[in-house]
Amino acid sequence: MYDVAIIGTGPAGLSAALTLKLHNKEIVWFGSKEQSEKIEKSEKIANYPGVPMVKGADLNGAFMKQAEEMGIEITEKTVTLISRNGDSYMVLANNEVHEAKTVLFATGVVQVKGLEREEDFVGKGVSYCATCDGFFYKGKTIAVYSSASKLEEDIRYLEEIAGKVYVYRTYKTDKPDPENTVVLEKPIRKLDGGFKVSGIVLSDETKIEVDGVFCLRSAIAPTTLLSGLEMDGAHIVVNRQQETNYPGCFAAGDCTGRPYQIAKAVGEGNVAAHQILSYLSEQK
Amino acid sequence: MYDVAIIGTGPAGLSAALTLKLHNKEIVWFGSKEQSEKIEKSEKIANYPGVPMVKGADLNGAFMKQAEEMGIEITEKTVTLISRNGDSYMVLANNEVHEAKTVLFATGVVQVKGLEREEDFVGKGVSYCATCDGFFYKGKTIAVYSSASKLEEDIRYLEEIAGKVYVYRTYKTDKPDPENTVVLEKPIRKLDGGFKVSGIVLSDETKIEVDGVFCLRSAIAPTTLLSGLEMDGAHIVVNRQQETNYPGCFAAGDCTGRPYQIAKAVGEGNVAAHQILSYLSEQK
Repeated sequence: MYDVAIIGTGPAGLSAALTLKLHNKEIVWFGSKEQSEKIEKSEKIANYPGVPMVKGADLNGAFMKQAEEMGIEITEKTVTLISRNGDSYMVLANNEVHEAKTVLFATGVVQVKGLEREEDFVGKGVSYCATCDGFFYKGKTIAVYSSASKLEEDIRYLEEIAGKVYVYRTYKTDKPDPENTVVLEKPIRKLDGGFKVSGIVLSDETKIEVDGVFCLRSAIAPTTLLSGLEMDGAHIVVNRQQETNYPGCFAAGDCTGRPYQIAKAVGEGNVAAHQILSYLSEQK
Repeated sequence: MYDVAIIGTGPAGLSAALTLKLHNKEIVWFGSKEQSEKIEKSEKIANYPGVPMVKGADLNGAFMKQAEEMGIEITEKTVTLISRNGDSYMVLANNEVHEAKTVLFATGVVQVKGLEREEDFVGKGVSYCATCDGFFYKGKTIAVYSSASKLEEDIRYLEEIAGKVYVYRTYKTDKPDPENTVVLEKPIRKLDGGFKVSGIVLSDETKIEVDGVFCLRSAIAPTTLLSGLEMDGAHIVVNRQQETNYPGCFAAGDCTGRPYQIAKAVGEGNVAAHQILSYLSEQK
């Protein structure tokens, strides 16, 4: 079992990982080896203490080098579900379950605009996790909305299980779909149904009946990952120790609110790491 | 009038100063041109994101260079008193009054061990500010306890005003004292008196009658600087926006509590700066 699962490889995640690594904690760190796409694309950063007037790509490069030199590995998997299990957490990423005593959300700010009526059907035919729920649609008809090219393998899995699949992608792919799959040209505009989802409506008003809808996005809202996590709008509610409403679950960086700044993120990551250390020593 | 008075030149103060300068705010920044003595003396820092495995002196050097390159000046004066004055603050440093719309405490953690019974006589013959209270001791007998070589000029001022001065210094000085001054060889052990202070007791139990005692320290407890500031032990109480119980008064870095870490300090300095910007724009 890991001591900590860190979700997100931006500056908050890095800051926490550095401190936890120095304290010899077992870390599983989910994200991208490119670390922070947001910083990478920043033209210039003028207010990060210690690194004057730096190009985003250079600072992100320094972050990557630092993680590597400290021997902190990044697991390039997308976390799709977290659940509390006794005193620890189960973290599902791609097809694997990882168990950790604590969880740190360092996911950045997730502004997921759902499909129309999507939230009406969460748990009622709308799923965010192929591995978790795919099995229930064996032989049935499903729609897949995907904005995450990294999750193409999840689409493959659903195509294997389901009887018929309607898939809409926000990106191009050259991987062929099997015969039971219809690639939608028009975007899915909204979901339809009564108590459960029963169909999708495309932008040209075409209606298609389905038994379930999978929404696959690389950015998943924190409450979708961990049900019951207290939020204030798009932000995870934390106290000054970066604790969320779940024991052993912490959050740091942009996901906890403004200002969306590197300095704030590294500060909160550091505070979260220290609080995690204190939590772990109390659990022993 | 300044927009902001920042007290302290450690990483929290620097982080705030960088952001406020970028927003073209008028800053008066009190502290030392050496910036952070604590970082300067750190052997190695392993968990500051962006600057891997760095000697304290090198990181502090980078901080100094960054402040200089951004054209942010440091005022090498010791703040001895802050008071709220209408919608703004009066900040007394050495002999000058500076007026600012907001104040940021970035003073580090101040573990001032007072003299025995010192706190019994605050405002009753014990003073922390030569400029503020010296005048009341014209021609009288006073004791001066000084641990701040930077405040030698305050001692000069008291020697000019008072009739007789007993001075104990925790450091060596080669500046001569005038004839009305007795330099104590033995440390002041405790203060004595009834309702008001009436004397000092040295470590060898010698008793000396005085009308007042000046305690001059480079580190002054935040509540001594700003009366009524809410504290939790040695730490200033702040919320997640780094606001104290005084409107327009903020705190960041070690002075707000553990962990005493550079990353936390720069994070809080950044958050405080953004909250100051928001406060200033609301005041307009």
